[in-house]
Amino acid sequence: MVNTLIFGHKNPDTDTIASALVMQDLQKELGNDVEAVRLGEVSDETQFALDYFKVEAPSLLETSVKDREVILVDHNEFQQSADDIADATVTMVVDHHRISNFETAAPLYYRAEPVGCTTTILKKMYEEHNIEIKPEIAGLMISAIISDTLLFKSPTCTEEDIKASEALAKIANVDLNEYGLEMLKAGASVKGKSPEFLLNMDAKSFNMDDKVVRVAQVNTVDVNEVLEIKEDVENEINKIIANEQYDLFVFIITDILNSDSTVIALGKEQQAVEKAFSTKLENNQALLAGVVSRKKQVVPPIDDVLGK
Amino acid sequence: MVNTLIFGHKNPDTDTIASALVMQDLQKELGNDVEAVRLGEVSDETQFALDYFKVEAPSLLETSVKDREVILVDHNEFQQSADDIADATVTMVVDHHRISNFETAAPLYYRAEPVGCTTTILKKMYEEHNIEIKPEIAGLMISAIISDTLLFKSPTCTEEDIKASEALAKIANVDLNEYGLEMLKAGASVKGKSPEFLLNMDAKSFNMDDKVVRVAQVNTVDVNEVLEIKEDVENEINKIIANEQYDLFVFIITDILNSDSTVIALGKEQQAVEKAFSTKLENNQALLAGVVSRKKQVVPPIDDVLGK
Repeated sequence: MVNTLIFGHKNPDTDTIASALVMQDLQKELGNDVEAVRLGEVSDETQFALDYFKVEAPSLLETSVKDREVILVDHNEFQQSADDIADATVTMVVDHHRISNFETAAPLYYRAEPVGCTTTILKKMYEEHNIEIKPEIAGLMISAIISDTLLFKSPTCTEEDIKASEALAKIANVDLNEYGLEMLKAGASVKGKSPEFLLNMDAKSFNMDDKVVRVAQVNTVDVNEVLEIKEDVENEINKIIANEQYDLFVFIITDILNSDSTVIALGKEQQAVEKAFSTKLENNQALLAGVVSRKKQVVPPIDDVLGK
Repeated sequence: MVNTLIFGHKNPDTDTIASALVMQDLQKELGNDVEAVRLGEVSDETQFALDYFKVEAPSLLETSVKDREVILVDHNEFQQSADDIADATVTMVVDHHRISNFETAAPLYYRAEPVGCTTTILKKMYEEHNIEIKPEIAGLMISAIISDTLLFKSPTCTEEDIKASEALAKIANVDLNEYGLEMLKAGASVKGKSPEFLLNMDAKSFNMDDKVVRVAQVNTVDVNEVLEIKEDVENEINKIIANEQYDLFVFIITDILNSDSTVIALGKEQQAVEKAFSTKLENNQALLAGVVSRKKQVVPPIDDVLGK
């Protein structure tokens, strides 16, 4: 009997890695034969969390998922998933994103809630099954919530995420603010990183009508560290657009201390960004005041312009 | 402030009508401003349940849902929903079907479980919110489960559906078998019904790759009552195919006492039915032994043949 694979999206962030590990723990507690895997490299931020709570990263998926049973966490859109996801049998999804480009041939267990983080939903599932949450699992859950909500500052953050974090902090025995800032800073250093690295570390593709939009995001405590190499970044974006035929590439550089973002947008649908944010790009660049969430503040307005 | 509309699929069956009413009750208990509506006529079976438990049917949706907030129950595929569903904001889905041709621009609450009936999931939601289930609401839930599982005989029926029904029967104060058979028979009389009526009373469309398949189903205690008017039924099916451009029309006549079905299939993809069920159509007709569930026993094998 082949076990069920559990994974989050490509370009894994802390929520995706943590959710896969947490779901693996939950399913094992329920007596199911599962294995968490990842679809990409572990980021500095995620590695900080894994090291802090002494948990091993899932191993990299290197086989086909064709005809395998799989559980998706923290994503559903097929273009963000394993390459041959359409040939797998998705038996379960736990997610907190919009649903799009997802379909199954048979009924499944699907649980999405409009909260800030997948692990906030997973916490409820432990409670519904009356399963105790271990300290290191609580630590991973907290790390995911802090990462996705930028320490509760993102508009995606809900009352539920905050309450869950407070309860989990007691189990994991950490100070939320202290641990949170330390973790975010560990992942926010962009100094010395190549444009290629920055544009791929947290990037997702979105189908909007017949167009494909790539939205990459980096968190930083100093936006200028990225803008210093803007010319190289733009060259790299243009190369990616040419190779992957994106209609639009949106690069969001988020200042985690001031809670706003600088956007660099390129591609033949570039003007969609101007319309979406009622702004003017200067040298392909604009400041998006108060914008920190790709999911809630970047994708929907662009989808309003480009989508059906 | 405009209220949120709650509705199930077109050609409503008992689960769809009951789920809309049950969800309306749950949301009102939670303090939300909602209104259950229906997308088609109430069937004889459903009317029997409504009369028995003294509940009014939801009113027929006669306005556009454009820019309205809506909650979908018992379906997600847009072609089974309100005509302009793509222009609505779906805030919640509770369903037990495969997911296909469904997308949103923003995160939402989505709960699907591979159980026999939507109200089995809704029952859990009452419990999670610690809300007491009223007797008439329990009655509607039972009616939906009995209808969708053909009194627990369908392969879609799970242990959860049975347990939920037993608990709900106590609240509603009915004998499951006695009430169940009475209700199913009330909906199973096809005598004197027109072909047009029979082909529309419980019909759904499915996108499979680039083809559109229509699957209609009737329950009966006497299959011959339908086969007596087979010529008229086939003429009507061919008319529907021509009008709606279906690639395949599959009409399932289910014998609820013997738990099998006779299929009549027409359309240019007719041979997909022969492949799907490893059978030969004679005069467009075949017996499908043990087949009673459209969702679990009819749609997946045809999708295996026609889908991507």
